[in-house]
Amino acid sequence: MLFNNVTIVGVGLISGSFALALKQKGLAKNIIGVSRTTASLNTALQLGIIDEALPLAEAVKKSDFIYVAIPVDATIAVMQQIMDMVTDKQIVADAGSTKLALCNALAQHHNRQQFVATHPMWGTEYSGPQAAVQDAFVGRCCVICEQEKSNSHALATVENIYKTLGMHLVYMDARSHDTHAAYVSHISHITSFALANTVLEKEKEENTIFELAGGGFESTVRLAKSNPAMWAPIFMQNKHNVLEVLNEHIHQLQKFKTSLEQNNPEALITLMKNANKISKILVKKQ
Amino acid sequence: MLFNNVTIVGVGLISGSFALALKQKGLAKNIIGVSRTTASLNTALQLGIIDEALPLAEAVKKSDFIYVAIPVDATIAVMQQIMDMVTDKQIVADAGSTKLALCNALAQHHNRQQFVATHPMWGTEYSGPQAAVQDAFVGRCCVICEQEKSNSHALATVENIYKTLGMHLVYMDARSHDTHAAYVSHISHITSFALANTVLEKEKEENTIFELAGGGFESTVRLAKSNPAMWAPIFMQNKHNVLEVLNEHIHQLQKFKTSLEQNNPEALITLMKNANKISKILVKKQ
Repeated sequence: MLFNNVTIVGVGLISGSFALALKQKGLAKNIIGVSRTTASLNTALQLGIIDEALPLAEAVKKSDFIYVAIPVDATIAVMQQIMDMVTDKQIVADAGSTKLALCNALAQHHNRQQFVATHPMWGTEYSGPQAAVQDAFVGRCCVICEQEKSNSHALATVENIYKTLGMHLVYMDARSHDTHAAYVSHISHITSFALANTVLEKEKEENTIFELAGGGFESTVRLAKSNPAMWAPIFMQNKHNVLEVLNEHIHQLQKFKTSLEQNNPEALITLMKNANKISKILVKKQ
Repeated sequence: MLFNNVTIVGVGLISGSFALALKQKGLAKNIIGVSRTTASLNTALQLGIIDEALPLAEAVKKSDFIYVAIPVDATIAVMQQIMDMVTDKQIVADAGSTKLALCNALAQHHNRQQFVATHPMWGTEYSGPQAAVQDAFVGRCCVICEQEKSNSHALATVENIYKTLGMHLVYMDARSHDTHAAYVSHISHITSFALANTVLEKEKEENTIFELAGGGFESTVRLAKSNPAMWAPIFMQNKHNVLEVLNEHIHQLQKFKTSLEQNNPEALITLMKNANKISKILVKKQ
């Protein structure tokens, strides 16, 4: 057993799955949930995700390890409260989808070295404790940012947890993380939301969508079910990168448009053959 | 046993899966493959998808049922050859992703009533006979167009096949089919191709994509692996509808862009909440 007491701040998809995995791997004896939402705490208790629910200060006080997974617009303020409270015996980590704003906010904190900035690259379009799943992180990648600013014990402990959960670790600075996350995660969500709106806007005969929509549509539009309250702050915090990728994406769509308008199937084929190269990347992953 | 001899023209993903299902359900005794590509015929023979390979004229001559599933730019010419050969004892169907051009081309053919225009709404990003799968069509929808132009025996036979394969049937005119297909299938492919190009264009550190790309990215970019030789003719034949949806999709992406540029998270949330409505449609489907 690594920890007697672990606090998860936020009891949702990521923290819930993380808590289930800690228990399953025997890494935590008692898991404390902290949330503004009483209903989520009750659900998490019922599902056995947490063992008890406490206010933040009490939870932090008795915990060896505090894991924060809440919408990124709330993370900085909550994290500053936590960091003000912890001792050099306690370890803090977050799971946020943006890293630069948080890392910058905590850069000068006297307890900075107790904190490890992480982003486990896993998620689904669902949210809340009822969305938490066993084995969520297995085989996925976890980014650790600014590892040189965490003390070696805290870093090794967090690395050990993620490895035990089946993740492989990637290290990068927070700015690089946010750039890469815009390309491989944030833009996929915007595309999917926009595609859903496209179809909903134009197609008024819902029953026909429902009848005809095949696997391809479901696949590309799946992320459109994601939680706006989680994603708006991510897009806002990573605005610079997201806009850059979004502009490029619109530009790429316009190439398809122009090729069609010009009755140029060869140009379409060239665009698609280039896109086919994504196979190499996806195959390597498996 | 419904048929002694069935010809599949094209031995790829759709026709291969169709042939496997006919055999599995005991609907066909002997399946004949027709293809311009000898390698595909050999693979289909080895995989047990077809029992023999013959040139088109010989195959048609001995078949009770001819099923055409080739790229849509080749379909019309091949179908006209077939229709010129068949008798009123033979039934012909196609599985193409566009329907208006083909239906118009065959409208005045003296054997039109032997033909049933269909589109089973299933596919994957893979192609060729090796991509064929058992139970491909189960639970999916099949569109039948201009059913009033098929004779009642041909229509009932084809309906019976698809139902036996586990599909539910939807009837619409060819023009409506092409419009709906643009919304629920063709645009998903363009989006996915364009997203792959976006990431490939901007992200030169391939290993980092490979490391960080999570399930969301894989899901939205999966269709970018699709076969350009199949999709270019679909987009070209359905140009009018595809351009309309593509323009709307770019417009929807620009709304996200504007909301971000104007630092307006409320507008982002409104856009995403609207997109969330797609859940209702996807849930109904299950």
